[in-house]
Amino acid sequence: MTIESDTQAPAEKETGRIEAFSDGVFSVALTLLVVDLRPPLLAHISVAQFWDSLGAMWPAYLAFATSFASVLIMWVHHHTIFRLARRPDAPLLFANGFLLLMVVLVPFPTAVVADYLTTPAARVACFFYSSIFVVLAISFRVLLWAVLRQCVLSMPAMQKLRRSYRLGPPGYLLAALAALFSAWLSLGIITALWFLWAIVAVRAEPCEQ
Amino acid sequence: MTIESDTQAPAEKETGRIEAFSDGVFSVALTLLVVDLRPPLLAHISVAQFWDSLGAMWPAYLAFATSFASVLIMWVHHHTIFRLARRPDAPLLFANGFLLLMVVLVPFPTAVVADYLTTPAARVACFFYSSIFVVLAISFRVLLWAVLRQCVLSMPAMQKLRRSYRLGPPGYLLAALAALFSAWLSLGIITALWFLWAIVAVRAEPCEQ
Amino acid sequence: MTIESDTQAPAEKETGRIEAFSDGVFSVALTLLVVDLRPPLLAHISVAQFWDSLGAMWPAYLAFATSFASVLIMWVHHHTIFRLARRPDAPLLFANGFLLLMVVLVPFPTAVVADYLTTPAARVACFFYSSIFVVLAISFRVLLWAVLRQCVLSMPAMQKLRRSYRLGPPGYLLAALAALFSAWLSLGIITALWFLWAIVAVRAEPCEQ
Amino acid sequence: MTIESDTQAPAEKETGRIEAFSDGVFSVALTLLVVDLRPPLLAHISVAQFWDSLGAMWPAYLAFATSFASVLIMWVHHHTIFRLARRPDAPLLFANGFLLLMVVLVPFPTAVVADYLTTPAARVACFFYSSIFVVLAISFRVLLWAVLRQCVLSMPAMQKLRRSYRLGPPGYLLAALAALFSAWLSLGIITALWFLWAIVAVRAEPCEQ
Repeated sequence: MTIESDTQAPAEKETGRIEAFSDGVFSVALTLLVVDLRPPLLAHISVAQFWDSLGAMWPAYLAFATSFASVLIMWVHHHTIFRLARRPDAPLLFANGFLLLMVVLVPFPTAVVADYLTTPAARVACFFYSSIFVVLAISFRVLLWAVLRQCVLSMPAMQKLRRSYRLGPPGYLLAALAALFSAWLSLGIITALWFLWAIVAVRAEPCEQ
Repeated sequence: MTIESDTQAPAEKETGRIEAFSDGVFSVALTLLVVDLRPPLLAHISVAQFWDSLGAMWPAYLAFATSFASVLIMWVHHHTIFRLARRPDAPLLFANGFLLLMVVLVPFPTAVVADYLTTPAARVACFFYSSIFVVLAISFRVLLWAVLRQCVLSMPAMQKLRRSYRLGPPGYLLAALAALFSAWLSLGIITALWFLWAIVAVRAEPCEQ
Repeated sequence: MTIESDTQAPAEKETGRIEAFSDGVFSVALTLLVVDLRPPLLAHISVAQFWDSLGAMWPAYLAFATSFASVLIMWVHHHTIFRLARRPDAPLLFANGFLLLMVVLVPFPTAVVADYLTTPAARVACFFYSSIFVVLAISFRVLLWAVLRQCVLSMPAMQKLRRSYRLGPPGYLLAALAALFSAWLSLGIITALWFLWAIVAVRAEPCEQ
Repeated sequence: MTIESDTQAPAEKETGRIEAFSDGVFSVALTLLVVDLRPPLLAHISVAQFWDSLGAMWPAYLAFATSFASVLIMWVHHHTIFRLARRPDAPLLFANGFLLLMVVLVPFPTAVVADYLTTPAARVACFFYSSIFVVLAISFRVLLWAVLRQCVLSMPAMQKLRRSYRLGPPGYLLAALAALFSAWLSLGIITALWFLWAIVAVRAEPCEQ
């Protein structure tokens, strides 16, 4: 598109391919979340029972919506960070691979919360759920580090970018610790956090090569 | 491809990426519909029983075909609307995310109809199914609003576009209400509606930037 | 890429988007075939029982391999035909949608054959499987018709193209009828047919606009 | 992008489309691995039981991580090899199709290991798992052969490339044989091998057309 040196163009194209592949993984992970929403199985079918059992699935709806929003916001931020990538070098590939591993995992803790939110194990289920997001937040920091190795930003731009992601790991850690006292407090913090990510969805400035 | 100002080109590329991601979600949601078509489990296997039980799955076939056609038509309309998008701003991202959330949900009410269409809960199952499409139709209106904030159309073009989608929410609401009286009437209205969307699949005129 | 009039370029880009979407559906349908390969459930676990039960799954392996090869070859042919498409008009959209509906269905008859190939219902299972492919072959003919409405080919090129797909519907119909006598004969014909499609995978000449 | 002869440009575009399709298959296969991570089913729910049963799923986590890393590394190498492809000829299509068949299969042996790693059948489960990777390694060699038919490389470049993949089939064969003595030794060799592939992830030099 833009006029570039010969060596840069193929490398850019290659980070583009990693990005497209990552997009594919994100979109499948997002869609697989619905697999855990199953029609109720009723021994005796009546209208009242049907509504009751559909209603009793609310933890599954809640977990679905929370995870869907989280993965979607992560996709936006993945894009923001990846736009700064210059070369598909080993640190970038490994950092991105680790992040994708965690993204692909999300349907599993989601199903755990859906199954256990109304049981005595609700708080530990939310602790487990939050812990996955702690690791996810760390993997975003690692990706940011792998990208900033390649891309020289102005000091204010870099600080702005780093500041945006600084809150991730401690925020989800707080949600995990809160889960030990209240499942709802934990889910509330997680919801507040993805609202926050949605608001700060930064548009990074281009690299100063 | 075309000669554009520097600032517009990357933004267009970015709405292109959102579109490609949305396409991925649509195509996976479409394909996941088959997951609910399972071979019959027979206690005693005979040719007659095999055909009987394959035939008894007709609600699943019907729900599969209706949902497949609906998602496919929605994909066409998503494209029509999204072509007018200019910038990946927050309202566009949220409106699109909400629409994708509903698209990803579709296999769930589909499975509910497949499981309950021949039970006493048939009408409420169809009510539930139609209700999801009411929300889907609203989410299309929201996306149209988020796009028309960015794109100046000629008055006739905008009216034509708005008119095309005006029928969505009340149409599916009618289907939901009809379900309270007859499951078949409800499914008939939904089928008629996607035929209608297929016919009006409008080709929006380009923005008068 | 090539120099074209302004009006043609966006249309080509749009058939490209339909093609990309169809590719997505093909790739997900292909991958979903593995969902029916499940580890054996053993009441009493021993090495001998493990191998026995893995071996007893051979109908599932066979059905998986046959369907995988069929969908992959269909993808190649879909591409061959779609390259000739000029405009995303209604017949093309409907013909393509119908073909995708059938492609997405493939994992279902595949699972039916996997479950019933060693039962008394083996022949009717293969009849059901072949019948789906009859409809698939017809849907390819319909797509070819929808494309050739838009694209003027030289008479020999068009005849060559039509001849390649002429064998489809009667070939799979033969497989369906053969299934009434022997499941193996039916599967043999289907295997022979996809070998044939692989060999004739034609490279269509460009349209004489 | 680059100036090429008319005949070469469409062919390149076509190998690009095969590559994009293959990427789609890789990304779905990667994401489907999570389907086998299911929340535990507990008869009597308590916090202790919850953690115990989550912990008891470690073979599933291990199998998930190993397969995820393997498929991701295979994707990188698929790209390295495919960049050298010049024409979508029959050997390339068949070699690539065979490789994709094996990639799509990976979730099946993964689930087998997850289910049987803590049973008396652990070693044969790992033997089965490793055997799939032997065939995968062979399919990479076949793809390399199909590509090098089309692309003339300098002798050192070709030797470097061939050397990188020489270790594949005997390496996984060693893992398969080791499985007969120890499941852990086998999994250790497989882990060591994907570390090795990650390190040698070669950047092939361009063809000397």
